Amino acid sequence: MIKVGIVGGTGYTGVELLRLLAAHPQVKLTAITSRKEDGLPVADMFPSLRGHVSLAFSAPEKANLKECDVVFFATPHGVAMAQAPELLAAGVKVIDLAADFRLKDVAQFEKWYGMPHACPDVLEEAVYGLPEVNREAIRKARVIGLPGCYPTSMQLGFAPLLAQGRQLVNESMLIADCKSGVSGAGRKAEVHTLLAEAADNFKAYGVKGHRHLPETTQGLQAIAGRKIGLTFVPHLVPMIRGIHSTLYATILPEARDVDFQALYEKHFAGETFVDVMPPGSHPETRSVRASNKLRIAVHRPEGGDLLVILVVEDNLVKGAAGQGVQCMNLMFGLEEGTGLMQVPVLP
Amino acid sequence: MIKVGIVGGTGYTGVELLRLLAAHPQVKLTAITSRKEDGLPVADMFPSLRGHVSLAFSAPEKANLKECDVVFFATPHGVAMAQAPELLAAGVKVIDLAADFRLKDVAQFEKWYGMPHACPDVLEEAVYGLPEVNREAIRKARVIGLPGCYPTSMQLGFAPLLAQGRQLVNESMLIADCKSGVSGAGRKAEVHTLLAEAADNFKAYGVKGHRHLPETTQGLQAIAGRKIGLTFVPHLVPMIRGIHSTLYATILPEARDVDFQALYEKHFAGETFVDVMPPGSHPETRSVRASNKLRIAVHRPEGGDLLVILVVEDNLVKGAAGQGVQCMNLMFGLEEGTGLMQVPVLP
Amino acid sequence: MIKVGIVGGTGYTGVELLRLLAAHPQVKLTAITSRKEDGLPVADMFPSLRGHVSLAFSAPEKANLKECDVVFFATPHGVAMAQAPELLAAGVKVIDLAADFRLKDVAQFEKWYGMPHACPDVLEEAVYGLPEVNREAIRKARVIGLPGCYPTSMQLGFAPLLAQGRQLVNESMLIADCKSGVSGAGRKAEVHTLLAEAADNFKAYGVKGHRHLPETTQGLQAIAGRKIGLTFVPHLVPMIRGIHSTLYATILPEARDVDFQALYEKHFAGETFVDVMPPGSHPETRSVRASNKLRIAVHRPEGGDLLVILVVEDNLVKGAAGQGVQCMNLMFGLEEGTGLMQVPVLP
Amino acid sequence: MIKVGIVGGTGYTGVELLRLLAAHPQVKLTAITSRKEDGLPVADMFPSLRGHVSLAFSAPEKANLKECDVVFFATPHGVAMAQAPELLAAGVKVIDLAADFRLKDVAQFEKWYGMPHACPDVLEEAVYGLPEVNREAIRKARVIGLPGCYPTSMQLGFAPLLAQGRQLVNESMLIADCKSGVSGAGRKAEVHTLLAEAADNFKAYGVKGHRHLPETTQGLQAIAGRKIGLTFVPHLVPMIRGIHSTLYATILPEARDVDFQALYEKHFAGETFVDVMPPGSHPETRSVRASNKLRIAVHRPEGGDLLVILVVEDNLVKGAAGQGVQCMNLMFGLEEGTGLMQVPVLP
Repeated sequence: MIKVGIVGGTGYTGVELLRLLAAHPQVKLTAITSRKEDGLPVADMFPSLRGHVSLAFSAPEKANLKECDVVFFATPHGVAMAQAPELLAAGVKVIDLAADFRLKDVAQFEKWYGMPHACPDVLEEAVYGLPEVNREAIRKARVIGLPGCYPTSMQLGFAPLLAQGRQLVNESMLIADCKSGVSGAGRKAEVHTLLAEAADNFKAYGVKGHRHLPETTQGLQAIAGRKIGLTFVPHLVPMIRGIHSTLYATILPEARDVDFQALYEKHFAGETFVDVMPPGSHPETRSVRASNKLRIAVHRPEGGDLLVILVVEDNLVKGAAGQGVQCMNLMFGLEEGTGLMQVPVLP
Repeated sequence: MIKVGIVGGTGYTGVELLRLLAAHPQVKLTAITSRKEDGLPVADMFPSLRGHVSLAFSAPEKANLKECDVVFFATPHGVAMAQAPELLAAGVKVIDLAADFRLKDVAQFEKWYGMPHACPDVLEEAVYGLPEVNREAIRKARVIGLPGCYPTSMQLGFAPLLAQGRQLVNESMLIADCKSGVSGAGRKAEVHTLLAEAADNFKAYGVKGHRHLPETTQGLQAIAGRKIGLTFVPHLVPMIRGIHSTLYATILPEARDVDFQALYEKHFAGETFVDVMPPGSHPETRSVRASNKLRIAVHRPEGGDLLVILVVEDNLVKGAAGQGVQCMNLMFGLEEGTGLMQVPVLP
Repeated sequence: MIKVGIVGGTGYTGVELLRLLAAHPQVKLTAITSRKEDGLPVADMFPSLRGHVSLAFSAPEKANLKECDVVFFATPHGVAMAQAPELLAAGVKVIDLAADFRLKDVAQFEKWYGMPHACPDVLEEAVYGLPEVNREAIRKARVIGLPGCYPTSMQLGFAPLLAQGRQLVNESMLIADCKSGVSGAGRKAEVHTLLAEAADNFKAYGVKGHRHLPETTQGLQAIAGRKIGLTFVPHLVPMIRGIHSTLYATILPEARDVDFQALYEKHFAGETFVDVMPPGSHPETRSVRASNKLRIAVHRPEGGDLLVILVVEDNLVKGAAGQGVQCMNLMFGLEEGTGLMQVPVLP
Repeated sequence: MIKVGIVGGTGYTGVELLRLLAAHPQVKLTAITSRKEDGLPVADMFPSLRGHVSLAFSAPEKANLKECDVVFFATPHGVAMAQAPELLAAGVKVIDLAADFRLKDVAQFEKWYGMPHACPDVLEEAVYGLPEVNREAIRKARVIGLPGCYPTSMQLGFAPLLAQGRQLVNESMLIADCKSGVSGAGRKAEVHTLLAEAADNFKAYGVKGHRHLPETTQGLQAIAGRKIGLTFVPHLVPMIRGIHSTLYATILPEARDVDFQALYEKHFAGETFVDVMPPGSHPETRSVRASNKLRIAVHRPEGGDLLVILVVEDNLVKGAAGQGVQCMNLMFGLEEGTGLMQVPVLP
């Protein structure tokens, strides 16, 4: 059994990790830390876990995280980088659900997150936890920076277009019009995500600049091996879970004959968690609710020069906790889908 | 034109007051105070008011509230009682949407609101602002304590039963199973009213005791002229606006022949804002959305001994801001419905 | 492996059965019938099942249901009773999620469902599928009439009060104020359950009489061994899944000293799927979302004579498909919780 | 007073017309037809109108529509064109909220709507009812084809870019990523718009082709005086009302110096119902809920070559009934905003 610790189990990615790990056949939940909730049984905060998780939160200094095999950080940005070096030194692997180990360029990190990076050497070693792109590196990694929820959908959605040797689309003018459920904003007391503010409402936000833009650009450039230009417009949907990314790319004249449906199917052949749907499909976010699946549909309206790629995922699973477990499975030599084969909940 | 000031215009009852008063033909909005937002145009915080309200928030000390004819307090409990005496002394009428002037018994106020009362003499003078019960007193009042949202629906729902000379129902065992939209909790940053917490969810709360219980008991006793016993169970509905109160009362044997439908219709005959629906109706909260109407349906399942009264209102209008404007109209000798005849918004 | 057939897999209880059975370790899904969708892969209608269910719908006459060990009917009322005799004769067990085998009194059935009963002898043999009340009979049953969604919550909520030898509450004046998510109305094209009708809205319905009233009365009387009187008021909540029943019962003077919390805890001790929460709890429907758990909290406001019992369940799981699987497990000698231990999905 | 008739008042655009017209100071509601609901008081179907609309539905042949000054058609496609000639001959003006008089090219109409056009001569005379583009023609029109909900937002959003003499953006590669509340699908009994299907969910639809594409293309070409190329991707948002269109256009090198914010402000200066918001704004759909306002924000992320235009409207008001009333006001020489100055309902 893998001994797992969680730092910061009081947010949405934390409780989602608990939901998945409590049912994982190879995991023993060993410690969950929260300074504020020290001593409180986890199931008192989240009654959904009554009967499934018997642990209590404990203050970090009591938690003996160093006896774990792996520690997940479901914390605000900045926490994981402060604690990772000591854990790694003790032989504990680290999976960070926040942004501390996503951006390879320290200056970029500091610009977008407004804090100095605490351990650039660990950052250098860290592997970006997107298994469909990075599987072999993840297997050998000691520390994982998990992708953000939006970046997962954008990277997997654009990857087949960019991963070919030659350019198929105008890579300097990619557009991602993304829509997220409100849980993406986290379990924080804020006015703009109150039900009475966000329900029966729709809006864009962060059009001027969003932290997931540099992360996605970095990832897409790594896939393409070239510079790319991306415009990313996030929107807030009055729903709890789910991301729907509508991606646009202009087909280059020399690629007009490409069978893009076949290209996507081939690219993701054999992937457990990526489903390229039949032509003409319109994936719904609920078709992946509470599951680690990501679904993609490829459209070319009226056979024209604009590709429209539709991508859905559950932001808390494939966009966060589930992807973390998927990485953990790889890092510990388990079948990649262990504990992650839940059927989506519909309706 | 009535010169109107608003203290605390940044919450939901505040913005609703602004919506109603901006369109009121006899009102001139004169000042809106907020220490925190001093100088910010109101329409910058609430873009729905762009083109309708040109005022900016101003710090209280700059606001010249004493030049108003009436000041509404859409503030947390405790603010109105601190400022009312000075305004009254300057000849300004006061309408408090919070609880400072609701409970006539100072000890009760202090028990349920956890603070001493600042002006028991003003409290004694204050009139409870429920026009359908208290119309004449409101006309002459200088200071109004507006009913809470739940208490409005419970009192108007039970009133016809209790206002008769003789007892018709077991008045010691009244039950009010009430359901409210989330805006009733106010525009405060809190976790439990986040969309990701409160959507697709339903729960009771405050079963042990809720501040609206003593207020409603006081009101029902005033209507009945007798002691009554009430159990009040509030629930949170995943919607923005609306209260639905399902009221239960056991018919006394000697009242089995009463025509309760006729009793209700007669009791509310001529009321502009109370609609007793035809027998067999199931009023929906959306049928009063954004309007000052309250609808009631009277049921007696299988002709048995239990009366089931269904009441709907918009918690922000008839349950708060609209009722305040209704009182203002009475206090200034206007037609009671002035500025309040909006057609409900459906769907 | 148990060979399972499903008749009518295109509604919400059908797709929920598929979600649960596809992951059940002892089940082999053998046939799903739908005349209208003959030949359509199930996963084409419900993309959430892509990769989990490879079956296609087949017309009933092609389906070879007689080779199954058990057949679930997730059909409109009237279908199961037409087909059950032939299946039973072939040695196939039958579990009906509709109402054909709920009401023991044929006249009652015919009154409330408006059709003659096709097989009163099978009805007589049928066992009411509420394991916490009826476990031993279910183990031996050949045909199960599964409880409705509301009746499950009302019966388990009142059971501890009524199952004692002596009367503790006024059993002639029980009240159930119940609230259900919209999936309870089924996957039928109807105006009143459209999102634009039912969202941001709340209403009661069926106050004059609802089919779940005679069923619940029958069940409560079986538990009590006495006549009981129940008023049942259902309401529609703008959410997808979940039932919250708020139950009221007046404590008899001679029972004022009973420790009702202890009574409930003792009554349900050892039950896998009933969770009596700590005193003061307010269970939320989302705390059981997508799981077979039912949670109960016992309140006695101000220590008075009115008991308030709060009950939550997922109407599609413990209120339908999950309870069906629970019964199947008992009928085939499996551990009662097999395939039903999913952690609820929150948020 | 203008005598107004409505054909087909049982859908969402119909009830919205009733809400607006019942409060319009210059309108006398004269007849509402519905063959199916003949004799039913309108307020029995829509209790929100109790006390505001006393008319009953009447069968078309009883309705005396010819005595009206203007008749609105809130009907399925095909109804208005069958009745318009006779009404026009009787001197009655016609405003069609459906598509019969939108597409000027009969062949296009027949292709997209699958029926022959009943009166091409009336179609030729008909004026496209978008006042901000077509005001003078509307004033003189006898018959109006009102724009669809999506097309209103797309045309007003792109208009300032296309209405200049010279090309500013790549007009062959315009993108409109649009999101609509569910009321846009109408008040029809259908599965895919049930709350249990559409809530907590997000999806695109009609990517292959949507009827609002040819209409919008026609409108944009009329504005530009040139051919344009548009890709339109509609999405369904789990909310009742509101459209949010996110528009993308690539700035041509020779237009990089244009001040697009100023361009938009100037283009819409003086418009009562178009609000160009300050730079950096993110308009929300609720900021126009239940009002005839449309709000626009202009973004140019990172100062690059892609313009991102955000547009919000209430699909039932500015996208349908409100725009119809706006046209009626123009046709009868009233102030354009008469009866349309409602403050948006927020929250």
